[in-house]
Amino acid sequence: MTTKYVYLDNNATTPLHPEVKSAMIACMDQFGNASSAHEYGRNTRKMIENARDSVARYIGSTPDEIVFLGSGSEANNTVLNIFASECYTCRTKEGNGYKIITTQIEHPCILQSTSCLSKSGMKVDYLDVNPQGRIKFDQLEKMLEEKTRLVSIMMANNEIGTIQDIKKISQLVHKKGALFHTDAVQAIGKIPVNVEQLGIDFLSISAHKIHGPKGIGALYVKKGTPFCSLIHGGHQERGRRAGTENTIGIVGLGKAIELLMETGQEDQKRVLNLKNKLLDGIKAKIPDIHYNGHPTECLPGTLNISFMGAEGEAILLYLDMEGIAVSTGSACATGSLDPSHVIMATGVGAEIAHGSIRFSISNMNTKEDVDYVLKKLPPIIEKVRSMSTAYVNVKK
Amino acid sequence: MTTKYVYLDNNATTPLHPEVKSAMIACMDQFGNASSAHEYGRNTRKMIENARDSVARYIGSTPDEIVFLGSGSEANNTVLNIFASECYTCRTKEGNGYKIITTQIEHPCILQSTSCLSKSGMKVDYLDVNPQGRIKFDQLEKMLEEKTRLVSIMMANNEIGTIQDIKKISQLVHKKGALFHTDAVQAIGKIPVNVEQLGIDFLSISAHKIHGPKGIGALYVKKGTPFCSLIHGGHQERGRRAGTENTIGIVGLGKAIELLMETGQEDQKRVLNLKNKLLDGIKAKIPDIHYNGHPTECLPGTLNISFMGAEGEAILLYLDMEGIAVSTGSACATGSLDPSHVIMATGVGAEIAHGSIRFSISNMNTKEDVDYVLKKLPPIIEKVRSMSTAYVNVKK
Repeated sequence: MTTKYVYLDNNATTPLHPEVKSAMIACMDQFGNASSAHEYGRNTRKMIENARDSVARYIGSTPDEIVFLGSGSEANNTVLNIFASECYTCRTKEGNGYKIITTQIEHPCILQSTSCLSKSGMKVDYLDVNPQGRIKFDQLEKMLEEKTRLVSIMMANNEIGTIQDIKKISQLVHKKGALFHTDAVQAIGKIPVNVEQLGIDFLSISAHKIHGPKGIGALYVKKGTPFCSLIHGGHQERGRRAGTENTIGIVGLGKAIELLMETGQEDQKRVLNLKNKLLDGIKAKIPDIHYNGHPTECLPGTLNISFMGAEGEAILLYLDMEGIAVSTGSACATGSLDPSHVIMATGVGAEIAHGSIRFSISNMNTKEDVDYVLKKLPPIIEKVRSMSTAYVNVKK
Repeated sequence: MTTKYVYLDNNATTPLHPEVKSAMIACMDQFGNASSAHEYGRNTRKMIENARDSVARYIGSTPDEIVFLGSGSEANNTVLNIFASECYTCRTKEGNGYKIITTQIEHPCILQSTSCLSKSGMKVDYLDVNPQGRIKFDQLEKMLEEKTRLVSIMMANNEIGTIQDIKKISQLVHKKGALFHTDAVQAIGKIPVNVEQLGIDFLSISAHKIHGPKGIGALYVKKGTPFCSLIHGGHQERGRRAGTENTIGIVGLGKAIELLMETGQEDQKRVLNLKNKLLDGIKAKIPDIHYNGHPTECLPGTLNISFMGAEGEAILLYLDMEGIAVSTGSACATGSLDPSHVIMATGVGAEIAHGSIRFSISNMNTKEDVDYVLKKLPPIIEKVRSMSTAYVNVKK
């Protein structure tokens, strides 16, 4: 008997799309260094610029506003580094005392970078979120000061899927003269993103969340925006990111984006249907659950549920034994026994946060995958709860 | 008639080895996020740790001293960033006024990073080199002060191939209590490298110079050495480099290193023979040349020749039309009309530096490649010189 494998951890990473895989394999023999003046170099350069055109077209920018780099984390770090005092002031010739505003529910690559910036004298304010995971506009308005240089707010959250009102945020930010960055790593490909319409100055993208390869990302930098490289060196990416270009990765990202342009919207409708089927099934079959996130302003494929009185890690392991892959919190925090900082920020207690499971669905999942989970999950929850003193308390 | 293609620009980048390509393709369906707790994640984790073992074994370190990252440039930037005042001092609790020593012939990713560090208050001293491109030990001894935190000297130069006496350098450096970093991007796979025997604290590696993929590198960090991440975020690479691991790239690097362990030494003997054949042929057929670099302490495959009175860019373009790929200076400086900073540092004039061509041979080149170049090159040099007023001056 073969076990069925159901991968519902697409917010952690996604399988390579077969066409992305083919595109990557097809370019493996085009090995030239894009910076070389000879034919090998020129051929590579063309492939890279084609991919850049695709990314730019997809988010409504011009190609020279797209910088390829190694990951979404590097994109986010690059943006925050621009505002690290010494780099930024060597351009503005102004003094220090600047402020950055972000949220409590950002990805660790933002929160650890801002923590590092704090140590070097930058002021950082962290926005709260409401129980559905959205920021509070009145709080943002109060935080915005003349010295605020950057506001960084993720477009959609990786753990609970909550989507922010980016247009309204960017308008507020720009009214106070600050720049606006959004980590769109989880949003790209799932909801429409147009940098001009949304008023975005910096936007981070990662390929491996959209059926592209790991190790490649892109950063949109609005023309005329101050910039400082995180990785100094050669003139690659118009002097904005040194290091020989990762051609195979860039071609993979380009292809993943082209596929989104072709079928992305239809795919996400199907993904939303799968999620609703999964949610309805869980509600019908399992008592004492808590929905984490926003009921409507949520990524189509993200479903985060706390099974009260059951430990998330235990559920994950039992599901894994049945061939089902899900996660507790973000993959970047695996190994930590702390409850998710995102779910805690929505105001629920640690007991509820500890029992949370993220199911993240992609267009490569099927109705059969959901049926399989709905068959396997209820007895697992029952088993985990039967061993839990916490669940006895829930029932009281 | 099909043109023959001869790629002699292997210091810029190398073709993927067929076995590296196969290994990368074979792992494309193993898409899990190495940080995930389920089976998909564990499978990916295993592949990454196998590659880490190979890299560690090859350079004589332990696996936990190896950090995978996006490129050689990122590896070099990461090391210099550790010593950026605010990061380093938050660990040492000491004051400022520290010094870094490097050379005038480093890769731009070192020189641009040190220039950035200078702006933020770090003192940086640049060592001269002799006409063969080697540093002067008496100058290094004089420069080393108590406040010197780091000395960064490349193991072998990318443009002229000159190899430094790393063991002697590290002994001097350690005697003064500083740490030693070497950019071994061009040296790895071509000369023996053992971090313990050579006394190295940090060492940078890039995969695409050894028939591996672009977009992946490694940094050796000696156990107990101070460290600060350049890219903050998740706990990947033991908290030393955030961002979901580039599995395909890491597997490619691991395979490239395994191939070096199998046949690297034999390959380099053959490469050296090819270079000597090319050099002898050029000497026999073309007058008025200048050899750039060290006659013996040189990478087996690197040959840098100035054709006096001929413009390097013109030679490159004519060779390109014949299907031969070479370079003038480093690929990272393409587009710049300045003469090579490396060749200028050896003390020759700008005229000689402008006429330099780097032929860089790998184990995938053949005797026939060299014969083809020796047939096509002499008439090209004659043609370029016939159009050059500079050559008239050379002949006077």
